Amino acid sequence: MGLTVGVDVGGTKIAAGVVDDAGEILVEETEPTPATDPAAIATAIADVVGRLRQSHEIEAVGIGAAGFVDAKRSTILFAPNISWTAEPLAGQVGARIGLPVVVENDANAAAWGEFQFGAGKDVDDLLMIAVGTGIGGGYVTEDRLYRGAFGTAGEVGHLRVVPGGIRCGCGSYGCWEQYASGRALVREARDRVASGLAEAAALSTAADGDAERLTGPMVTKLAQAGDPLARELLAEVGRWLGEGIASLVAVLDPAVVVLGGGVAEAGDPVVAPARTAFARTLPAAAHRPAPDIRPTTLGNRAGMIGAADLARTP
Amino acid sequence: MGLTVGVDVGGTKIAAGVVDDAGEILVEETEPTPATDPAAIATAIADVVGRLRQSHEIEAVGIGAAGFVDAKRSTILFAPNISWTAEPLAGQVGARIGLPVVVENDANAAAWGEFQFGAGKDVDDLLMIAVGTGIGGGYVTEDRLYRGAFGTAGEVGHLRVVPGGIRCGCGSYGCWEQYASGRALVREARDRVASGLAEAAALSTAADGDAERLTGPMVTKLAQAGDPLARELLAEVGRWLGEGIASLVAVLDPAVVVLGGGVAEAGDPVVAPARTAFARTLPAAAHRPAPDIRPTTLGNRAGMIGAADLARTP
Amino acid sequence: MGLTVGVDVGGTKIAAGVVDDAGEILVEETEPTPATDPAAIATAIADVVGRLRQSHEIEAVGIGAAGFVDAKRSTILFAPNISWTAEPLAGQVGARIGLPVVVENDANAAAWGEFQFGAGKDVDDLLMIAVGTGIGGGYVTEDRLYRGAFGTAGEVGHLRVVPGGIRCGCGSYGCWEQYASGRALVREARDRVASGLAEAAALSTAADGDAERLTGPMVTKLAQAGDPLARELLAEVGRWLGEGIASLVAVLDPAVVVLGGGVAEAGDPVVAPARTAFARTLPAAAHRPAPDIRPTTLGNRAGMIGAADLARTP
Amino acid sequence: MGLTVGVDVGGTKIAAGVVDDAGEILVEETEPTPATDPAAIATAIADVVGRLRQSHEIEAVGIGAAGFVDAKRSTILFAPNISWTAEPLAGQVGARIGLPVVVENDANAAAWGEFQFGAGKDVDDLLMIAVGTGIGGGYVTEDRLYRGAFGTAGEVGHLRVVPGGIRCGCGSYGCWEQYASGRALVREARDRVASGLAEAAALSTAADGDAERLTGPMVTKLAQAGDPLARELLAEVGRWLGEGIASLVAVLDPAVVVLGGGVAEAGDPVVAPARTAFARTLPAAAHRPAPDIRPTTLGNRAGMIGAADLARTP
Repeated sequence: MGLTVGVDVGGTKIAAGVVDDAGEILVEETEPTPATDPAAIATAIADVVGRLRQSHEIEAVGIGAAGFVDAKRSTILFAPNISWTAEPLAGQVGARIGLPVVVENDANAAAWGEFQFGAGKDVDDLLMIAVGTGIGGGYVTEDRLYRGAFGTAGEVGHLRVVPGGIRCGCGSYGCWEQYASGRALVREARDRVASGLAEAAALSTAADGDAERLTGPMVTKLAQAGDPLARELLAEVGRWLGEGIASLVAVLDPAVVVLGGGVAEAGDPVVAPARTAFARTLPAAAHRPAPDIRPTTLGNRAGMIGAADLARTP
Repeated sequence: MGLTVGVDVGGTKIAAGVVDDAGEILVEETEPTPATDPAAIATAIADVVGRLRQSHEIEAVGIGAAGFVDAKRSTILFAPNISWTAEPLAGQVGARIGLPVVVENDANAAAWGEFQFGAGKDVDDLLMIAVGTGIGGGYVTEDRLYRGAFGTAGEVGHLRVVPGGIRCGCGSYGCWEQYASGRALVREARDRVASGLAEAAALSTAADGDAERLTGPMVTKLAQAGDPLARELLAEVGRWLGEGIASLVAVLDPAVVVLGGGVAEAGDPVVAPARTAFARTLPAAAHRPAPDIRPTTLGNRAGMIGAADLARTP
Repeated sequence: MGLTVGVDVGGTKIAAGVVDDAGEILVEETEPTPATDPAAIATAIADVVGRLRQSHEIEAVGIGAAGFVDAKRSTILFAPNISWTAEPLAGQVGARIGLPVVVENDANAAAWGEFQFGAGKDVDDLLMIAVGTGIGGGYVTEDRLYRGAFGTAGEVGHLRVVPGGIRCGCGSYGCWEQYASGRALVREARDRVASGLAEAAALSTAADGDAERLTGPMVTKLAQAGDPLARELLAEVGRWLGEGIASLVAVLDPAVVVLGGGVAEAGDPVVAPARTAFARTLPAAAHRPAPDIRPTTLGNRAGMIGAADLARTP
Repeated sequence: MGLTVGVDVGGTKIAAGVVDDAGEILVEETEPTPATDPAAIATAIADVVGRLRQSHEIEAVGIGAAGFVDAKRSTILFAPNISWTAEPLAGQVGARIGLPVVVENDANAAAWGEFQFGAGKDVDDLLMIAVGTGIGGGYVTEDRLYRGAFGTAGEVGHLRVVPGGIRCGCGSYGCWEQYASGRALVREARDRVASGLAEAAALSTAADGDAERLTGPMVTKLAQAGDPLARELLAEVGRWLGEGIASLVAVLDPAVVVLGGGVAEAGDPVVAPARTAFARTLPAAAHRPAPDIRPTTLGNRAGMIGAADLARTP
């Protein structure tokens, strides 16, 4: 097959690119997400694809989005950031552009991208962990994307890691993403600033003294500059990350774990503690091979590239 | 293919049966397990297969055993109850009997048995949870057994459910099987008897007053007879079971969860609380289809039947 | 000394009574709490005391209120429900009525009332646990009220019982009162109604189908009528209660634990599981005497009676 | 009163000293503990006191020992390290030496020593935390030692900090001393060495490659020399320590927390993380005064000095 388009629908931005069968992005376009209007989203996706078709011949479109996607890869059952409920997105976009369209969960798409062209292209079995505001997961097993019976596999962010733990937006308590995500990092950092601890001085300055203005990238930047509290906060997220990965590896047994997402981009301050915690808590570690934990090589393009490639697969 | 033999190697007993391609066991033999002598085990398996061959023509043998089995289905990397380390069991047995032999993790074999002929024969994606002394797991996804990169997938008993929790034999802390297994049931029941609580009177009598003599079946029997403490203890195991299943379903998204193993055989006193706890803790339950939780229909023959069937698959 | 007045300042109501030195309430008056206006509260207390003085000769006034009270028993450092910050309440009321006034934390006052005239009048060392929306605590040791260095002892509701647990209004995570209080009961009951579980039918009906309208007394009433889910919810609160008491008894070693507050008034559905959980989790129970857990005998008058009596003590 | 003798009965050594009323030790003697023979212990204590009387005139003897001591300060109900059960130690020693004898829990004695002559001599309310193999506690409130109704107050090491946590020798699960003591430090350090992690190289060398030979002082020494893993292990203990102290301060409200015991002697590597964790987790910290956390000033003589002084108090 020739060229396909991969579309990454985020809460604020739609990014789309023409991708060849080597996973290279030839050209890319973006568009704001009209997040509260499903029909407008389908139109916006069609528009951006239309612009890309002016310069390239496209055979199919793959769309990645956060949320539950049905097993037929066409309907979004539920999305946390966009007002989709049982939205037949593939059909809506297909009708507008007259091309085959598949929809896939964004972490699944990223997992597939890393598997085909990125950090896991040398293996057959891969676990992708995307650590952003929340945590997403995707797995490839024996060269196939694992979708689950209803298309909703991979909700690793809702693994319960603390019984009776912090309330999660999903309605449960103690979900992993309350401890090992960007949301957790920011919540803890704001707590420290708000409590006025001396060691939070640099964080407080970064946020102009207003805890609520503190963001994840501010913490990351300070950590990279050596601020002890920022490093401790990222290390704490890293520890939870590594401990959760140990549980997932016991269940899924991948050859490689690929870490992506904005938090993972902080690099060593979060990845090193994650690796240590993983090695320490992997069950029966002495008796089984352990996977590598690797950073993403496709970065935030993994989902676009993976979605484009999935559009090639019937 | 015609008939195959399924072998279930337990810590104390080897059970083998001739199984047809409808999953029916035609004849069955057992033999004690010489658990500390790997060569003797291979010989014992060959002997029992030999006896079965006297009456039936056999084309292949499938062996299920607790432990880590390599991805080639031939070597046992490590087993908790038998002194195997990197034991090339398939080759050893094959050499003795001159037939194709495959080895599989026992919970994987049971999952396959239930998928082909038992509680999950109507679905394509199944999660098997075998709750005995510990907890084993096996999954079928899109009609294929999920083995993992190294053959060690399915160690669901070592999902960490309590950070800083009870020490597990695997070296980690807070593993699921420390809370939701027969071992947990017996430990808690013995604690109650040892502490001499009035409500533990029936349990104490069952154990002749000696906490250390109390067994899981005693607790189950008392629960079925209505003893309040025995019911509470099984309900507690059931709650942990259901909560852990909720985490696994978020990750794996099966169409059906099949509960097997000795503890699950207690039936309602453990299964009803498990179902309730599962429904209460499944993340985002309002937005996704939920699998049925069903009891095994093959009982403790699931592993034998599954192993025999796996021997048919190249 | 003759008669004193005990005042119980709640978030919505001020209740005051003339109390004799046998702990009998001779007459009682109430008044709404002007909760957002500290000066108006002092005036309202003075008014209600004034009304009581018309019929009885009063020698002193004791005021109990939720919050941190300083060690001199005169200033309220902070209160969760009333807009007091470093409020010199004793002086304000004293100036208006011309009588000696002492202020005391409400759970301390209730502990003292139970110690002098109620469930603990036979012992010298008592732990009072008041389980309402939150959890308050007061202790008497060797016949003296334990106040702590700064007057803020007894914040037992903020014992951390789950590391990384549910966020508490105090800013911390995993505080006991997030699991063993009326707030916890209502939160869990609402979750069940909102998730539409079949077993929540009775609770749902009680709340006219609107989870947010469900209250603690509704749950209690259903539990007393035998509704299984309501009983389970109260039992869960009771378990957490008993487990927390076990920790406190290890630390404080009282002769008696008195349970009061609205949740404890549910009686057996919460108290029986609390006793069982306490007996099971008290450390080294075989080697030490264990206190009785008793229900309050003064009920919601314990604070008023205790405050009146504390006004007698210089 | 003139001179008294303070006796500190440990699992391996009896240390006794003549102490004046300023808390100064004039002379000191030691003797091995015949830990399995209660009569021999009484005789050994009498012997060592006899030696001290040759040079000094003694008026009374105070004995501190780990265990539950009854409220009359004479009988040891139970001791973890010595075979005492309901042992009337005061009477046994008194009969041998003809002097008044009182017995006190060792952490209580240390608390009293620090209160009278050490880190808390400027305050009226003190919490002593003695972090050795386990954790002991003692409190002084309004200038009086807090003993509890049965003499068994202060078992702070058995505060439950993790529900379903690590099994404790006391029979419960998740006790504080499983996370914040020397035992926890050594257990974790040995795990790291046994798992052969590269970062455990220095610890492994210190233990001659045998995890079981690793001791707490080895970890402390490496931490003080800057070894990153040793520092992390002590910091982890320090975090648990500070978090537990926050719970205790919410309950007890001391003016000062004194940290003693062998682990606390590691100084900054454990005390700094403890202080940080305490400040972060103290409930409602913005609304209440917080106590200082101070190191012991009497060191391992606090118990001897405190016991001697308690012998002066009828």
